Amino acid sequence: MTTIADLGEQKVLERLRQFCSQVVGDDGAVYPLPADKQLVVTTDVLVDGVHFSDRTLPPVELGWRAAAVNLSDLAAMGAMPIGITVGLTLPPDTPWPWLEGVYQGLSACLGNYGGAVIGGDLCRGPHRSLAITALGAVNRQQALYRYGAEVGQTLISTGAHGASRAGLAMLLGELDYTHNNGKSWILAHQRPQPRFDAMDVLRSLCPMASRIAAMDTSDGLADAVIQICSQSQVGGTLLRSQLPLPAGLVDTVGVTTATQWTLYGGEDFELVLSLPDRLAKAFVEELPGSCVIGFTTEEPIVRLVDDVTHGPDLLLEQTQGFQHF
Amino acid sequence: MTTIADLGEQKVLERLRQFCSQVVGDDGAVYPLPADKQLVVTTDVLVDGVHFSDRTLPPVELGWRAAAVNLSDLAAMGAMPIGITVGLTLPPDTPWPWLEGVYQGLSACLGNYGGAVIGGDLCRGPHRSLAITALGAVNRQQALYRYGAEVGQTLISTGAHGASRAGLAMLLGELDYTHNNGKSWILAHQRPQPRFDAMDVLRSLCPMASRIAAMDTSDGLADAVIQICSQSQVGGTLLRSQLPLPAGLVDTVGVTTATQWTLYGGEDFELVLSLPDRLAKAFVEELPGSCVIGFTTEEPIVRLVDDVTHGPDLLLEQTQGFQHF
Repeated sequence: MTTIADLGEQKVLERLRQFCSQVVGDDGAVYPLPADKQLVVTTDVLVDGVHFSDRTLPPVELGWRAAAVNLSDLAAMGAMPIGITVGLTLPPDTPWPWLEGVYQGLSACLGNYGGAVIGGDLCRGPHRSLAITALGAVNRQQALYRYGAEVGQTLISTGAHGASRAGLAMLLGELDYTHNNGKSWILAHQRPQPRFDAMDVLRSLCPMASRIAAMDTSDGLADAVIQICSQSQVGGTLLRSQLPLPAGLVDTVGVTTATQWTLYGGEDFELVLSLPDRLAKAFVEELPGSCVIGFTTEEPIVRLVDDVTHGPDLLLEQTQGFQHF
Repeated sequence: MTTIADLGEQKVLERLRQFCSQVVGDDGAVYPLPADKQLVVTTDVLVDGVHFSDRTLPPVELGWRAAAVNLSDLAAMGAMPIGITVGLTLPPDTPWPWLEGVYQGLSACLGNYGGAVIGGDLCRGPHRSLAITALGAVNRQQALYRYGAEVGQTLISTGAHGASRAGLAMLLGELDYTHNNGKSWILAHQRPQPRFDAMDVLRSLCPMASRIAAMDTSDGLADAVIQICSQSQVGGTLLRSQLPLPAGLVDTVGVTTATQWTLYGGEDFELVLSLPDRLAKAFVEELPGSCVIGFTTEEPIVRLVDDVTHGPDLLLEQTQGFQHF
């Protein structure tokens, strides 16, 4: 198979040009910013063997996911995508079709949600990695922060959590691939959908961003609730009866594992929002799949209240989520 | 020595916070953009063992250089820095003082030239690398491109070339460290200076960007001239008598190596400009260290004319510059 070393840097860059915006090709890309907008910037690095592998993410899916991970951060801020830069480190023996697949995936995701590849660097290294920086634009007064929550608000989730973790388990051969829901779980892992649609619903109900907190659940549902609560200096209570479990997951892996994956599995790229109750109710009525998961409290702890088995309440802690070191 | 794994992700991020802009800490950083500006974006990836090593770049110098490399691209576009994002991949056994040093260097460079760390990601990987994306702002109509050159213009360089390559040779022990000019060559390699000052001079002489091409010389002087000429669909002639050799380099390594390093050494992060002759003359009078190096021609080749030894003209080719694969 043709490697990128066979092609040489110039040819590789020429071939990648088709996936990039017209503005690419100088020392920097020049991009007009719409008037009265604020710039939103976010960065994620994906490393082979840590965040992905050929086994779990074919190149097109890797590209999609690399873009989606960053766009999800923009969605959580209430911003619309402008574009991404792609910093690639690759061993010289990387097959060209692999690299082409990654760019096809990046383009497909950007094609779906908006934005373009507006910059990049390609360099030699012993180990594959992608560093993506996404740029977005948000109207003044409309950016959403983690610190916007207040005591007595309703916590909502835009969708189920744990499906990505279940999909990963299937791809790793830890769960049976032929399971009914398997395909949707694998899709959840390989083709996460940034929730710009949820933000459209929120805007239609409430144009301004005051008294709202938002965060994406890249590092898990529990982590998002903890981050929102700690940065807003409030507490949070999740109800076991309202945990957003994916359909069929309890039947497949049992309630303990399903709960663990829903709280801490991570990489579902849904959004958690803290909203005034009336707005929250209107929101979950408008957005299919979204649901109330709990409420914010004065006491600065985050817990899962067991209103199902009436077992002891569970204190949720950050250290159970995905740790990068 | 304390490693980043000893500290854990949360503590490392807390400690890095002091080096970052206030806007960091949410899903994305929100940044107001000055009215009537255009956004300029550029990305560079630096990989341990390819672009740097402990031997040639101590951590503070690595940080400085990583920022400077990207700011230099902004300078070449005529833009002023807004900030950078830092995507770091590090093995868990990376000593904390190394990481702190890198951020000290990044901050020192940004402190000198403007901008702040406005985003980042830190992740585990088997091999150290830094992916930096720099954002800048440029007034409408003032962005400079590689394709702006015309036939019959004067080519200028903002400074000497080859010093960074000589500094690298000294750091690698290939050249005697006690040489008179050694310190300045090492400084050229470890602390490159983005030429925003050159752009200030250009603006004072000519506010608009029409009929001007610019590029930084990260991949070498010859490469910059070739890129400007090929993207502007003109040719270029450099004169051997006007090659911007660093003082003392010919005496140290001989004329052949000195010429090679000046043309192809790379990483001097000066600027090459193609300008109408009158503007070029005014520019080199205003900016100390800058000089005329040649002129643009109709015939679409780039050559070095030997007006010193009257030897054969040399055709300059891209493939002799730094190739990433």
